[in-house]
This record gives sequence, structure tokens and C-alpha cells, in this order.
Amino acid sequence: MPALTDFDEFRDIAKRVNNWGRWGAADEIGTLNLITPETVRAAAATVRSGHRVPLALPLQQYGVQTGMIQGRVNPLHTMVALNWEMFEPGAIATSDDVVTMGLQAGTHWDGLGHVSHGGRIYNNRAASTITAQEGAEYSGVEKAPPVVGRGVLLDVARARGVDRLAGGHAVTPEDLEAAEALARTTVRAGDIVLVRTGQIQLYLGGDRDSYAFPSPGLSLRTPEWFHARDVAAVANDTLTFEIFPPEVDGLYLPVHALDLVEMGMMQGQNWNLEQLAQECADDGRHEFLLAAPPEPFTGAVGAPVAPVAIR
Amino acid sequence: MPALTDFDEFRDIAKRVNNWGRWGAADEIGTLNLITPETVRAAAATVRSGHRVPLALPLQQYGVQTGMIQGRVNPLHTMVALNWEMFEPGAIATSDDVVTMGLQAGTHWDGLGHVSHGGRIYNNRAASTITAQEGAEYSGVEKAPPVVGRGVLLDVARARGVDRLAGGHAVTPEDLEAAEALARTTVRAGDIVLVRTGQIQLYLGGDRDSYAFPSPGLSLRTPEWFHARDVAAVANDTLTFEIFPPEVDGLYLPVHALDLVEMGMMQGQNWNLEQLAQECADDGRHEFLLAAPPEPFTGAVGAPVAPVAIR
Amino acid sequence: MPALTDFDEFRDIAKRVNNWGRWGAADEIGTLNLITPETVRAAAATVRSGHRVPLALPLQQYGVQTGMIQGRVNPLHTMVALNWEMFEPGAIATSDDVVTMGLQAGTHWDGLGHVSHGGRIYNNRAASTITAQEGAEYSGVEKAPPVVGRGVLLDVARARGVDRLAGGHAVTPEDLEAAEALARTTVRAGDIVLVRTGQIQLYLGGDRDSYAFPSPGLSLRTPEWFHARDVAAVANDTLTFEIFPPEVDGLYLPVHALDLVEMGMMQGQNWNLEQLAQECADDGRHEFLLAAPPEPFTGAVGAPVAPVAIR
Amino acid sequence: MPALTDFDEFRDIAKRVNNWGRWGAADEIGTLNLITPETVRAAAATVRSGHRVPLALPLQQYGVQTGMIQGRVNPLHTMVALNWEMFEPGAIATSDDVVTMGLQAGTHWDGLGHVSHGGRIYNNRAASTITAQEGAEYSGVEKAPPVVGRGVLLDVARARGVDRLAGGHAVTPEDLEAAEALARTTVRAGDIVLVRTGQIQLYLGGDRDSYAFPSPGLSLRTPEWFHARDVAAVANDTLTFEIFPPEVDGLYLPVHALDLVEMGMMQGQNWNLEQLAQECADDGRHEFLLAAPPEPFTGAVGAPVAPVAIR
Repeated sequence: MPALTDFDEFRDIAKRVNNWGRWGAADEIGTLNLITPETVRAAAATVRSGHRVPLALPLQQYGVQTGMIQGRVNPLHTMVALNWEMFEPGAIATSDDVVTMGLQAGTHWDGLGHVSHGGRIYNNRAASTITAQEGAEYSGVEKAPPVVGRGVLLDVARARGVDRLAGGHAVTPEDLEAAEALARTTVRAGDIVLVRTGQIQLYLGGDRDSYAFPSPGLSLRTPEWFHARDVAAVANDTLTFEIFPPEVDGLYLPVHALDLVEMGMMQGQNWNLEQLAQECADDGRHEFLLAAPPEPFTGAVGAPVAPVAIR
Repeated sequence: MPALTDFDEFRDIAKRVNNWGRWGAADEIGTLNLITPETVRAAAATVRSGHRVPLALPLQQYGVQTGMIQGRVNPLHTMVALNWEMFEPGAIATSDDVVTMGLQAGTHWDGLGHVSHGGRIYNNRAASTITAQEGAEYSGVEKAPPVVGRGVLLDVARARGVDRLAGGHAVTPEDLEAAEALARTTVRAGDIVLVRTGQIQLYLGGDRDSYAFPSPGLSLRTPEWFHARDVAAVANDTLTFEIFPPEVDGLYLPVHALDLVEMGMMQGQNWNLEQLAQECADDGRHEFLLAAPPEPFTGAVGAPVAPVAIR
Repeated sequence: MPALTDFDEFRDIAKRVNNWGRWGAADEIGTLNLITPETVRAAAATVRSGHRVPLALPLQQYGVQTGMIQGRVNPLHTMVALNWEMFEPGAIATSDDVVTMGLQAGTHWDGLGHVSHGGRIYNNRAASTITAQEGAEYSGVEKAPPVVGRGVLLDVARARGVDRLAGGHAVTPEDLEAAEALARTTVRAGDIVLVRTGQIQLYLGGDRDSYAFPSPGLSLRTPEWFHARDVAAVANDTLTFEIFPPEVDGLYLPVHALDLVEMGMMQGQNWNLEQLAQECADDGRHEFLLAAPPEPFTGAVGAPVAPVAIR
Repeated sequence: MPALTDFDEFRDIAKRVNNWGRWGAADEIGTLNLITPETVRAAAATVRSGHRVPLALPLQQYGVQTGMIQGRVNPLHTMVALNWEMFEPGAIATSDDVVTMGLQAGTHWDGLGHVSHGGRIYNNRAASTITAQEGAEYSGVEKAPPVVGRGVLLDVARARGVDRLAGGHAVTPEDLEAAEALARTTVRAGDIVLVRTGQIQLYLGGDRDSYAFPSPGLSLRTPEWFHARDVAAVANDTLTFEIFPPEVDGLYLPVHALDLVEMGMMQGQNWNLEQLAQECADDGRHEFLLAAPPEPFTGAVGAPVAPVAIR
């Protein structure tokens, strides 16, 4: 396999989207800096109906993970107490539960430490600052401010006239702009963009293997588009986020590297955008207040989230 | 220990606050029914500054659990991949993590199945419908609609002129009303009420044992007050939610039983209300848009949440 | 499906092999009582070559579990410290690991509490004495004395002239006796019998699904044979122990019920008997000292074991 | 803190006990090579009474870990099925359990990868061959042959005339020889030596904190003694194995480094030697057949074991 440095185009894009130092050498949150009190206030002002749309998949043992990604286990939920009359028979009883799960097993945010290249993570920190004993010293998920802002749904599937993009479809800037036109709003600084491919229908229909692979997803050309718009974060309805297998032979996870490492922009995966897409199509409004704060695991490189669109 | 039926007052309150059947025999979400598109819209309209205040404690191994509650373990976060050049040396590398934790270990919501009494959970379901293999058949946390609405901070500590209520302080309806007066808003149907005792300062200051016990907390007399106001949910900044040790000798967790089983009202615990309280005191506004959707674990009787107040 | 009481033959066998009360009403270990200092001494005396044969499969994420058995997860092994220079750079560094796993995920013993029928476990205890919070009050795996004794390999596959019994093969008493003849020793009181089907070759060859199902295994008629010989415990090289799918339509796990509940005899599964079988065939000696103490998890209904045959 | 290279004595001992290359450059098991068919046969021949003495502590949530060692969590045992009538009511029901635990949480063996110094583990492998995703590439616990051989109890406490050595007692070669004299046998090549301090009485008596710290344990001078005798492995009845706090200011875990890294000799901890000591004292025989195969976790740097002495 060629080394990363052989991929000229990747290297060039990396330079163009790089945000290292943009918010200071001490910065750990990247493009979340683009969410400001003003953008949040404006986001709250988009609420019309007061309707809440949940975007998380239920967390369960038969979740989206198929075993393809080593160590990323579906949630194993067990009861450590079951109607336990702790004090004596006849008393008030308690039930209690525990879980073991991959932090990226279900609907989640990738933290900025999730990938590295050239031994570096976001903002030019050494990748070796992530350790087994402490996790991520920098840019751990617990450092993120609450991810709340204007959400915009870019329904690429609908814009392209299909229910679901094909497995081999690389979502391009042109696709994003077609969906933006459909959305009748312009993506702007501090927005959280939700890109719908429809792929999650496969999982919802019971076919986990096809959901995982092959997957439509974001093209190597999209990071520049997000960078130009100064987007705060991007999520979609696939397992891999970017197109998989990859567009360029031998170049795995380039979009992850560009988004997380170069730009410092969190990515969301396995978001269920089906109900939201229907509601947006029904009333033509594709913007909403999005609340999606990750669970603040200290030192984590990813975290579950239960996002909600408030319309 | 006397049986529950010996506690006449408990029994009488239980009858008065009971919501079984109120939203139909099939209902699984209780007082969350009181959140409506109208209350959400009104909640969004309270946003002034666009400031976001996180209310979750970081999730970590040295979290709030001391071992006092059997099986409810603090989060154990470990890396299953660490800058793993999965494809070959020099390629993009990934890090990935897993966690094992009690679902109620940190900042969390109690699900309606968390306690039972007399063999019953909310809405007259048999407690035995919760099983080791499936968890809660009814009222599992994944059934809750996104918990988003108007949040009101009742800062009892400040209303009573202290930084932190003493360990033995039972928060009464009179305390709540004093805090309501301070808040200059009236608690109303569909609100999510956050009751501040200041107790979490002990944990934040490094004293986990004192945080756990003895704890100030809600009195046996508060469920009726919440019921009268038709509150959707209540959270506070303690480990036990209600005063602990209990007010009535031999009557453990009566507030849990009244809130969860009789009313069908979710309770939140270990919420960090310190920064929020400061901001509310600073500008005199104690209402805000609260987004606090629990992680939707299927069949769970409790779930972590990363609540955010949007002011 | 018919109720258990409809299966006359099962009921009749259950009566004949029942050991309840045989070692007193307080007994929790069943047929392990049949191992005595004398049988252990005799077992030690069988050692000739001093060769040690391991019988456990490695414990790993891609272990024998396929997801078919809910909750019984393969081992997830992760590092909580990795060459951690805890004290300062240059000092001695430590690595440390944790695991999450089903206790019956790999090579294991079924504890006597693993199955119940008619609301009863071994020695007429109520099945409800097993609880989510404490596990098995009676006959937990930690109660077992060290499982050490004379092991006898009954190589049914070889006795029947095949490398591996077919998926549909129910191992009968006649099969056991053919293997006993091949072994040139008589199974006697206190022995631990290892029954080889060859099925584990499928797992070792990489085909986990075929290993799991359909499986050869012990027939409904074998418990009486083991009972007549006063065997202490039985293990084999399959996932399901007994033939699966079952011999009698609608009667699932009857051998488990007879062995564990009625006789109080522990069962072992996923034992790798391939190397042992080869060595026994090579020198004609099918008896050995077997050391197979389960990990003593308090209240457990099953436990991993790393058995070793000492020849 | 001084660097390791400042500790001249440590460096000198390290050279003298070093076994790198002794069994070839490919060796991964170190002193376990010293167990041979002959030593095993001789060990089996020591069996007299046929009595089996278990040496493992029960594995449970309130086990020996106090939280002092980050990430090394006590076993959390939960039921994933509880008398589950999987097929239909009235059928045979199953119970099943899972565990999450530190592999070194209870009675365990340290694998050779558990410590490194100077960036090296046993046999001059790079410490970096242990990774988060795969664990130990070399000398993982699953590589160990079954640990079975002659066990010798060196009851230092009894030899020194006390029930339990004091917290500050460093066990010296002289102590070992006093205990050897008491044992009336000579420690020889391939033996597995069990050193009793009596410290575990504190844990058994309910005082976990005092058990952990301060602890008696093996002195920096003992590795040479074990090396001279060509011992295969050593275990004792403490949490830290070696004296803790350490003998030399600023030199942490030197015995671990000498035993595991330099000699390639596995160490056992938290072994309950109380009953064994009593039986040895009663009949004067301090040698026995010891069966102590670790659970073969792939890539593990430590593993639980349920050792049994067969006398």
C-alpha cells in the first residue's frame, strides 16, 4: 500500500482545510468554536411547531455493530438488581442496570482523537498523548462544550430523487448543494449539518451487514466544502461516515483524517434521520434547533449521543 | 421493619398523587405526557443570551460512586485501539474506546422501572415484567420521548441563604416555594424542575463519602407539590435524590416510590447545578430551555444524560 | 409447544436419575461428592509420562460465541495500562488488562444453577433463589471443591471410525460403551468423563457457525448411563453439550435438566479434546489425572476453566 | 526521582539473573521451560492423601481491589438470563451470567508482559509489541503451557514464629531458607514456590485497606535466590508480591522487573495459603502436586487462576 505522502491530492486538501492554531495553540475543540451565543440564539429562534424529533437509535445488544470493527462491541445491558427488596420483604424494591459498550457502537460523535495521521492529532498534538491508562489528554470528548446549535438537514437522497443512495455513492459537494437548494436555506458558520443518505433504512429493515458495507458516504471532496462554510460539525446516517470502500485505492479513512485531524471537526455516525427527513419534506423547513451533547467521558475519543431536533 | 402498609401517611399520599390510567392503560411515559409542542415552543422562547450551560459531571473511574450501592459501578473507560495503523505503517491510524458502567453511576435519569412496591411499577404493571434477559418490558428508558422543555431552577440553598444545605435537610414544599419566589416564575405544567441543594460541592471538592451520605434531599411531602403543579420531571444535585437517611424510620426510598411508581415521573440525580445557579443569580432569570434526552438503552431502568440549559 | 409434563419419557428418566437428598438436604455440589481422597490418589497414580495436555480454547474476541445465545458474549480483552511509567519517565512500567465476557463463553463448566425446571434447581431448591443482585444462593460455582480426579477420554468419533461425528449424531449409551471398549478402562465412581465428538474441529478450522449448529451431542439416554456409573462430571467438545436441534420435538435442553437439576452433575462444554485424543490413541492410555477447577465466581451459574490432562 | 540506571545494585542483580536467550531467541515462556515431564512425574508422585486444597479467593465485587490500582476493577458479576423460559412458559429455563474484571483483580498470575523497563520485556522484546488492540504479541498468558508441577510451601511466617509477618517485613533469602528448613525439602529446578507471609489474613478478616498497604513481600534480594534454584514460578499471599512501600527509596517494583523482565518468571498474587499452611504444618509435608494453569486470555499480561494443591 502506498504511504499517505504518496497521495498528493489528499496532502493538498489537508493543507487547505487545516485549522491548527486558528483558535490558539491551546485549543482542544476545533470547529465547535464556531458555535457562539449568537448562533445558538438564532437556532432557538427557528423553533416553530415545538415538535421534538429523536435521532438516536436504541442502544441494544443487536445494534449496528456486526463484529467488523474489532473491539467496538454493541451494548450489553444487564440488571445488577431486579426488584430487590434490599431492606426486607415487602419494602420498596429497586432495579438497577449496567452496560458494556463501544463508545462508538451506536449513534455517536467521533471525538477529535479518534484518528491520527503522521503521528499527529488535531492542533498538532502528538498522537502519543492518547494512552491506554488515561485516554486522550487533549481534545477528549469531555472537553467539548454542549453541542447545541442550528441544525440543517441536507437530504441528499431526496435531492437526488431516491429513497436511499446506492452503496457505491460518494456524496460530493454538488450533492450537498443540490440538497441545500432543496432545503431552501444556506449552510453558514456554526451550523451542524446532517447529511441524509437513507442508508440506515437497511439497518432498520434488519439487514445489518448491508448497512455496514458497502456504504454510501462523504467524498474526499466534502471537507473543503464544510471548511468553506465554517460548519461546526457534521453527522450522517451511515456506519462509516465516509464512502466505504474508499474512493482512492489504498487510502483508507481520508475524510476522517481531514475532518478530525486537520479541521478539528467532530463527525456523527449512525444517526437516524428518517423521521426528521419526512417532517422536513412535509413542511419544507430543513432548519431546526439541534441539541446533541455527547456523554462527557473523560479522555474519550468518541461518545454516544441522543440528539434531538426541535422544530 | 414495619411493612409499607403500616405507613399510613405514605399510603395516603400514594393515593393522592397516583397517575395510573391518567394517560390510558397503555401509557409508558407518565408525566412526560405533560410536555407538549406548546410547552416546548414556549421553552424555546425563553432563550435570551444563547448561552449553553452543561449540567453533567464528567464520566470517569473516580466518579461519584463509592461502592455503597452494590453493582452500580463508576465508568471504566478503556482503549480497544490506540493509534492503530490498521492497514499498514504510515497509514491513517484509529483509536477506539469502550466503557463498562452503571447506567445510574453519574448524571442520570431514573427510569420509571427503577423502583417498584407492592409488586407493581408505574401504571399498574407487574414488577415481574422487568427481567434479567430483557430489562424493562414497559417504561424502559428508550420509550421516553426526548426530554426537552422549559427548565426552572429552584435554588433552595440560595433561597435559604446558604451555599449548601446541611446533610440532614429535608427539602419541603415551603423550601420549594421560597425558591420559586426567588426565581420569579411560577412552576407550571410540563416544566422540568431542577432543585439545587449545593450538596454536589462536596463531590466537586473531592469528598465523595460526604457527598453520598448523609444527604439533603427531597422530602416525602414534595411529590404532592410536584403533582399539583403537573411537573414533567425533577432533577437535583445529590446522589440519593431524596433525603438520606430517610425521614421516617424504616421507610426507605418513599419519594422514589411516589415519584416513579405512583406518579410516573422521572427523577434526575447527580446533576451539577453550580454554574447554572451562578448564572441564574447573576441575571435573575431562572427559566431556560432544557435539553436532557436520556441515552435510549432498550429496557433500561436508568440512563446517563448530558443535560444542557440553553439560556 | 407441549409442556414438560407431557414428555413421559423425560419424566421417567428424571425420577430414575434424581439425586436430591442423596448427600443430605444441605448439599450444594451433587456428584462432585463422588470424588474422594481415594479416587484422587488413584488418579494421581495414573500419571506415566508427566506430559501435560491443555484442554482450553484461548479466550478471545473471536471466540466460539456467534451471537446465537443472547448475552453470552465472547471475551473483550482491553488494556487499562500500557507500559505505564506510573512514577516517572524512565521508571519501571506496568501494563494491566481487563475483560468482559460471558462466563460460559469459552471452555467452561455449567454450574448446577445454569438450568431449572418446574421452578426447581438441584436438591429441590427454588429456582427463585438465583437473583440478579446475588446470583445463585445455592450451588454457586464457588461452592465446588477443586475439580480434580481421574479423567477418562471416551473418544466416540474414533470408536465409530470417523474424524468427526455428523451434526445430527445423538451420542448414545452404546456409543459410550464402544468408546469405553476402545479406552480399555471401565468408567467408575468419581471419574470425570470427557466425550469426544470431533465437532470442535469446525471451530478450529474457522467455521464458527457450523460448530454451533447443528451439533452432535449427548442423547437423552446418556444421563442414566452416567448415573449408573456414578460419574462425577462430564465434558465434551461442543457448544451445546447435548445434541442440537434436540431429539424430541419441542423438548429443549432435556439433558441439561437431567444432568444439572436432577443428578446435580456439572457439564463441561467447548473443551478442545483433539490433542488429547491423539496422544491417547498413540499410546493406548485413555485415563489420566485431570485438573479442572472452575474459576470460583461467587454466585455464578457457570465458569471458565483451563483444564489440563496430566498423563 | 532517580532513573533506573542510578540504582547500581538493581542493575547488577539484573545482569546476574538475566535469562534472555537462555531458551533461544524465540522463547516466550521463560522459566516455565524448567518444568519437564520428569518434574511433573515426580510431582505426581508426591501425592499421598489425595486431599485437594483450593488456593483461590472467591471472585466477587467486594474482592481485594480497593481502587488503589487504577483500572484493576473487582469482578462485577451479573445475570444476563434468570430462569429464562426461552421457549415457552413451563419449559426448561436457563440462567446465564457475565463478568467484567481486572485480569489481576483476584488470585492471579502476572504474565511476563506485565512490566517492562528500559523499553524491554522478557527476552529482549520491545515493550511496544504490547498494544491496546492486540495485547501482548509475545509472552501473552495464552502461550504458557499448563502450570503444573511440584509445589513447595515456604511458610516464612511460621518459620519466623509469627502468624503473620508485619507490614514492613521484606522477605529475604535467609527467610526463605529458614522456611525451607522447616519444609524439610530442598527447592529444586522446576519447582513452583509458594511463599506464605500470612498477610491475606487481613483481607479474610475484612480489612482490605490494611491488606493492600503496607505489605510484607519479597525483597530485592530474592530473585537471585530463585534464579540459583531454577524455580519455575513463585506465588504468595499478598496484593503487591514484593514488599510495599519499596525497600529502596524511589525504586518501585524492582522485584517485578527482575522476575518478569530479566528472568522471565511468572509471579502469583493474592493466593490464599492459610488452609494449605495448616495442613502442611499438621503432617509436616510441604511438597505437593500443584495445578495452576492460568485462564488462557489471548494477549493477556495477567490472568486469573484457580490453583489447587493435591497432597
